[in-house]
Amino acid sequence: MVRVGPLKLKAQLLCGDEGAMGPGKADLLEAIDRVGSISAAGRALGMSYRRCWLLVDEMNRCWRERLVDTLAGGGSERGARLSPLGREVLEGYRALEAELARSSERQVARLSALLREEPLPPRD
Amino acid sequence: MVRVGPLKLKAQLLCGDEGAMGPGKADLLEAIDRVGSISAAGRALGMSYRRCWLLVDEMNRCWRERLVDTLAGGGSERGARLSPLGREVLEGYRALEAELARSSERQVARLSALLREEPLPPRD
Repeated sequence: MVRVGPLKLKAQLLCGDEGAMGPGKADLLEAIDRVGSISAAGRALGMSYRRCWLLVDEMNRCWRERLVDTLAGGGSERGARLSPLGREVLEGYRALEAELARSSERQVARLSALLREEPLPPRD
Repeated sequence: MVRVGPLKLKAQLLCGDEGAMGPGKADLLEAIDRVGSISAAGRALGMSYRRCWLLVDEMNRCWRERLVDTLAGGGSERGARLSPLGREVLEGYRALEAELARSSERQVARLSALLREEPLPPRD
């Protein structure tokens, strides 16, 4: 998720009906890269192991090669790391987000000037 | 919602915690402009009158002036039309979406080359 002042931007890459990359998956890849396992990444993000595993599996099935390699050894604490393609896709996605933020600045400034500071209260 | 090949982009403008503009609200403004009432716009979009009314009210409370003016006369069939500010905000939002689509093309082409045509089936 990208924020530019009052603008919230969500960029999602699809493969068929599956989500290949998006804000949550990119955060998960970064967490796996930082902590070295899917379960520890889940704890860091406040997500269940099952949810993280499903997101990793969905990503791995959408790209030409796996984005996350899991290391040998049983149990949910075994290690995981980004593949070279995982790193490339993550960097490309973050570059896309940065480009979107940059390119929106002019229109957002124009629209921001027309927004109230705070919304009026709802009508009863 | 903007599509650029496999990319789905959602741009939302917030005012405090309220949604000032987004894909659904922009579509609703266009429908009101086309058909001239909130209830007919709802029918055209397959949305309830109540849902449309809430979206219009939320927009109207977020910007310096109302985006939709409702005309005198009772009942849900009374007319509605875009205010000058409504037209300006709608055009600014569509211009923002067009700019986002344009600026994403290069990164999307790069990432698309790494995507499969179709995802692999889920693992059991």
